Amino acid sequence: MRPFLAAARNTAPPDEDHVVVEGTWAHEMLLAARTPVETFLWCPELVRTPEARRCADVLRARAETAYEIGPKVLTRLCGRARSDGLLALARLPRRTAAELDFGDRALVLVADGIEYAGNLGTLIRTADACSADCVVLVRRQVRPNHPRVFVASRGTVLTVPVVEFPDPVAAAAWLARRGFTVVVAEPGATRDYRTGDLSSPRTAVVVGSEGRGVSSGWYAARVRPVSIPMFGTADSLNVSVSAALLLYEARRTRAQPGQDPSCRSPRTGGAAARR
Amino acid sequence: MRPFLAAARNTAPPDEDHVVVEGTWAHEMLLAARTPVETFLWCPELVRTPEARRCADVLRARAETAYEIGPKVLTRLCGRARSDGLLALARLPRRTAAELDFGDRALVLVADGIEYAGNLGTLIRTADACSADCVVLVRRQVRPNHPRVFVASRGTVLTVPVVEFPDPVAAAAWLARRGFTVVVAEPGATRDYRTGDLSSPRTAVVVGSEGRGVSSGWYAARVRPVSIPMFGTADSLNVSVSAALLLYEARRTRAQPGQDPSCRSPRTGGAAARR
Repeated sequence: MRPFLAAARNTAPPDEDHVVVEGTWAHEMLLAARTPVETFLWCPELVRTPEARRCADVLRARAETAYEIGPKVLTRLCGRARSDGLLALARLPRRTAAELDFGDRALVLVADGIEYAGNLGTLIRTADACSADCVVLVRRQVRPNHPRVFVASRGTVLTVPVVEFPDPVAAAAWLARRGFTVVVAEPGATRDYRTGDLSSPRTAVVVGSEGRGVSSGWYAARVRPVSIPMFGTADSLNVSVSAALLLYEARRTRAQPGQDPSCRSPRTGGAAARR
Repeated sequence: MRPFLAAARNTAPPDEDHVVVEGTWAHEMLLAARTPVETFLWCPELVRTPEARRCADVLRARAETAYEIGPKVLTRLCGRARSDGLLALARLPRRTAAELDFGDRALVLVADGIEYAGNLGTLIRTADACSADCVVLVRRQVRPNHPRVFVASRGTVLTVPVVEFPDPVAAAAWLARRGFTVVVAEPGATRDYRTGDLSSPRTAVVVGSEGRGVSSGWYAARVRPVSIPMFGTADSLNVSVSAALLLYEARRTRAQPGQDPSCRSPRTGGAAARR
């Protein structure tokens, strides 16, 4: 039980990449992503829908170990009473920057110093929706296996490649070697984000932390600062909102649905589901 | 102290519109919005920056009542030790739908059944950035005076008009009487959000709850469902992200900065500040 509680409470050692997954939608994501599951727990009294039953059947066979548990144990592990009786301990896939290959029209999201798990999860979810090639974490403050990252990403943290650099200089050098134009979201920039800077063949979009924005280290490299026009009283946009506007603008100027075979087939979105 | 604690802990009666405001940036928003402050508390030992001192000086004179307090009382009221020594109890302005006037190119955001305070705050912040005329709450689940709404809105809940309707039918009738085209974010819609539906003179954008999307009641009225293309594995976008893409598209097709005198002068954004 210990790795479960450590992952669920975010108290595991920093290099641990266990993630705890709860609920039918999340288990469906595990199955779709073919993520290896170390431990699967299910509580038959609480598995009530056909979808949950299907997940339970498949994961009992597929997990390294599987246990039937009672509602009390499940509640203790989930930290709440309402549950659909499924709980899994999986490992996030580990990726390194060196192993990533990019096509001619690559798109990368760089998240610099993001502090809140919900924001990091939403960034990954939006990167998934825009078919970004990867998310690059710089000056990481929140781990990708934080339970709230999983939920806010709607499980896309299982499939979107996430790589890390300790500082902007290392990340910028890696992007430069691969021919990326680096576009930095910067409230003070005079260039509007829709004036073409996001249409370069390989584009990296950099968004900064909730409190302090992007770190000054980015400006040692050749980057293009852009801003999003604002007409109100607040001094900035939410970081997930900024990233979505820039990524969707970059996506608009490159492959349209169906025109680029490297682009996954489009789905449509609009309303949100569970954050 | 009781109204403070009730507002800070979100335990005030539902019709109470007190909001507790903490920190220098938030007090600067109170001053800029000229929000009446009922009670102002400050702790001289913790007021350290010139900006905080200026807020303290102005609010001591302007608040209905003002008290000097010690660090222990402040910590008890804030629920945390780190603070810059300023705390205010203010009232959100009350608006009714009947009192709102709209110009020829009005833009409204409708938030239907939003469940999370952070999302509601971010929606209001984005509506502010896009110079939307108001935010309409339908089937309200979270109060606008929730402390997390204030923080996530970056204080724009003080200035963006927020009005309420109990259900979609009442809201749709009000919008129809005022000549609004109602555009609903709907993951299953076949029309792309960039195909012109958001360019009507008066446009209302409807986004739905995190769990269930927009309520079916909207479809009794004449609405235009649109979707945002998605190329990944997740089944939807975060509601704040959806709203931002639709609002910025609507803003793009109408007044550009400086072209419309009804539009406030533009500022620019990009990185985020405190969520």
